[in-house]
Amino acid sequence: MAESDVKILGAWPSPYVMRTQIALNIKSVGYEFLEERFGVKSDLLIKSNPVYKKIPVLIHGDKPICESLVIVQYIDEAWSSGPSILPSDAYDRATVRFWAKYIDDKWFPALFEIAKAQGEEAEAEAEAVKQLLAGTTLLEEAFHKCSKGKVFFGGDSIGYLDIALGSFLGWLRVTELNGLIILDAEKTPGLVGWADNFCADSTVKEVMPETGKLAEFTKTLQSWK
Amino acid sequence: MAESDVKILGAWPSPYVMRTQIALNIKSVGYEFLEERFGVKSDLLIKSNPVYKKIPVLIHGDKPICESLVIVQYIDEAWSSGPSILPSDAYDRATVRFWAKYIDDKWFPALFEIAKAQGEEAEAEAEAVKQLLAGTTLLEEAFHKCSKGKVFFGGDSIGYLDIALGSFLGWLRVTELNGLIILDAEKTPGLVGWADNFCADSTVKEVMPETGKLAEFTKTLQSWK
Repeated sequence: MAESDVKILGAWPSPYVMRTQIALNIKSVGYEFLEERFGVKSDLLIKSNPVYKKIPVLIHGDKPICESLVIVQYIDEAWSSGPSILPSDAYDRATVRFWAKYIDDKWFPALFEIAKAQGEEAEAEAEAVKQLLAGTTLLEEAFHKCSKGKVFFGGDSIGYLDIALGSFLGWLRVTELNGLIILDAEKTPGLVGWADNFCADSTVKEVMPETGKLAEFTKTLQSWK
Repeated sequence: MAESDVKILGAWPSPYVMRTQIALNIKSVGYEFLEERFGVKSDLLIKSNPVYKKIPVLIHGDKPICESLVIVQYIDEAWSSGPSILPSDAYDRATVRFWAKYIDDKWFPALFEIAKAQGEEAEAEAEAVKQLLAGTTLLEEAFHKCSKGKVFFGGDSIGYLDIALGSFLGWLRVTELNGLIILDAEKTPGLVGWADNFCADSTVKEVMPETGKLAEFTKTLQSWK
């Protein structure tokens, strides 16, 4: 078998890496997954992403592409073998780009703060919880606007904003294991149903990490502080 | 005269607002500029960008679009009346998206740190200077790769990355007024020539703030600390 033309430099707990995998799955593009070891950077990673030396990197032929949302847009544009990931309308595209950036700049940092805190640093954690819940309410509203009554932000199939938010569902479940309910049938009914549909999708199922395993991993984050 | 269909909520010293203006100029789209007062948020701003309440906002018809790089991509996709702002090749698009994000996440925050410091907080300023110079060297390399021997990152005409970086040239000149040379004929000859061409372009000239006026404005930033 010929060496794959498409490679991902990644690691299983990374939501950003998962975005790359889901996008390739949507396009039915096979890829070789090169697992980076935690705390060690391979020569290929350093060469492929010299600016940040971070995963994920998508290598298409001999060309490296870095930054998960840039990669997802690249995959959508480079392969026409599957549904479009971004909406066709320019205003709808602007809307999903806005919310994807919001998720990365504001929403996930709050979730990450909580995952790291794990009961310590009560004040910072309380502030992060407040931000996360307020942000989730905004995302519930965005879901209703974007999905237009369908099951995904992208309509009938998983799109850009589904990938941007859905990649964090594993982390969300870990946080919920620890007692903080973020997606709630009363307050965010749209997102509750959406999360079920997202995780059950054939493009997602195989790459969503098992919650218990991810919970073990997040405990190691304590040592980062 | 009918009310303009295209409005910008902005303020003259904002590089992010300038991006929106340059992109509309490239497409030869006229617009109404609604100046937001410093420290006061208009009702229209709060209504149009409820998440961040920040400028710029582009209002096209009755639709608000927020976040400067999202806006620039929207303008490129919504109007075909002028050269393309993003490259046509998917890999080239990924490359300019990567560097534009780098400029916003890493490069400009260092420049902003220096603008705010103005001689105080020597240690933080020294670190920011180091980061800014290293980042500028990376951008010099990116310029040579993207421009392929032509005058702009975008080739013969101003493109996405030109707008992303060029919008900060006013701030760069203020920093240079204060004695820190960032674009240097020996170390970054490509960017020196590029900056001249960018500022002389008809889509840029009228919206680039005068350096002395901007220098006065940056002094007020001291009071933000």
